[in-house]
Amino acid sequence: MTTAAILVIGNEILSAKVADENGPFLARELRALGVDLRRIETVPDEVPLIIDSVRRCLASARWVFTSGGIGPTHDDVTIAAIAQAFGRRVVLDEGTLTLLKARYGDHLNPARTRLAEVPEGARVEFHEGYLFPVISLENVVILPGVPSLLREGFTRIRERFRVAPIFTRAIYFTLGEAALAEHLDATVARFPSVGIGSYPRFDEADHRVKVTFDGRNESDVRSAASFLRDRLPPGAIVREE
Amino acid sequence: MTTAAILVIGNEILSAKVADENGPFLARELRALGVDLRRIETVPDEVPLIIDSVRRCLASARWVFTSGGIGPTHDDVTIAAIAQAFGRRVVLDEGTLTLLKARYGDHLNPARTRLAEVPEGARVEFHEGYLFPVISLENVVILPGVPSLLREGFTRIRERFRVAPIFTRAIYFTLGEAALAEHLDATVARFPSVGIGSYPRFDEADHRVKVTFDGRNESDVRSAASFLRDRLPPGAIVREE
Repeated sequence: MTTAAILVIGNEILSAKVADENGPFLARELRALGVDLRRIETVPDEVPLIIDSVRRCLASARWVFTSGGIGPTHDDVTIAAIAQAFGRRVVLDEGTLTLLKARYGDHLNPARTRLAEVPEGARVEFHEGYLFPVISLENVVILPGVPSLLREGFTRIRERFRVAPIFTRAIYFTLGEAALAEHLDATVARFPSVGIGSYPRFDEADHRVKVTFDGRNESDVRSAASFLRDRLPPGAIVREE
Repeated sequence: MTTAAILVIGNEILSAKVADENGPFLARELRALGVDLRRIETVPDEVPLIIDSVRRCLASARWVFTSGGIGPTHDDVTIAAIAQAFGRRVVLDEGTLTLLKARYGDHLNPARTRLAEVPEGARVEFHEGYLFPVISLENVVILPGVPSLLREGFTRIRERFRVAPIFTRAIYFTLGEAALAEHLDATVARFPSVGIGSYPRFDEADHRVKVTFDGRNESDVRSAASFLRDRLPPGAIVREE
């Protein structure tokens, strides 16, 4: 199974100055691509914490996507941290440097030159019509934190992560979780390949619990939903989708 | 300094079935209370991963707030995981059990009884007018995942976390980050007690970079902003707030 982890880097998220859009965006994209997202970590702009998170994410998932901490200022430490996590040096990418020289000429100051910094051995991909490259190192994709740039960068490479889709069904119940629990336990035991979730509501919705069934095998997913449905009276079910 | 970590537990967030509201809500609340949020982790409904995250969050912050995984069904494993993280047993809370017996009488099935489960030694707080207790174990506050219930639970206890406020200033610049970088470096070096962030934009906003200054000492925060402002021509600044 193809798995992923997301690492959101930025004091501005932790201090609630801005709401993170990148984690939810990547979660939706990965789901649509059939990739199983295993964890999201949000950490400050601090090298030791980023290194620790990158290593943990790599240990728990095939792909790691980082968001934020790319740029020319003091709080942009992601490149340095990822290089250190892999025991690599930070070097200047020749392709990026050539573009920066063409653009800035004599105004290519040290801060602008930092935009060419990458971990040694990184893949730096420019795509026609886009100003910024997508940088990756082994299975870590390093994306910028500005949401429009992150979406643009991810969209350029998204198809390389596509795997078999995840099928899903949902049943909405008038019963509460406590009444459903034993039937859910039986369904979980009978269909180990299907991920089953139970989500209660306490508002004025038309249902009290939504039960979801997720899996790679569509037939198993449908069978699990049928199995649970058949254990309960028809009046307990609002709808299935 | 009072620090916190947030642990969001739930497959439904990772699979993008629902967008997490609880992490952002708690981040805003903690900020308003003057608490320094150090990390957010989002993990699946899996006991070993929750134990690992709880321990890491406790090692990096004074307070840990968990969201989700509370309830009577198979995917509600937070109580068991937190108990294990502390080497405690799961026990039935007598106060909760009494209320459940009064409510359900002969209908108190095993699933409903699970609602009384807590880690041994947990603090279980009922508040007048609320159905659910707030459960905590040492410095871990265990909140439900349903956003309305989490907000309700946190609001009942929020004042106990209040510490000295964090002061903040922001300057909006017409210059880009590369032009500001050396001046930011000088400001960072001069005011080590002030957290300085630089946030570029690439859209049609009236500014290209927002620089923020955060700290416990209001005078230092104002001085840091003035120091940076005075290094740059007035025309470079759109506004300060």
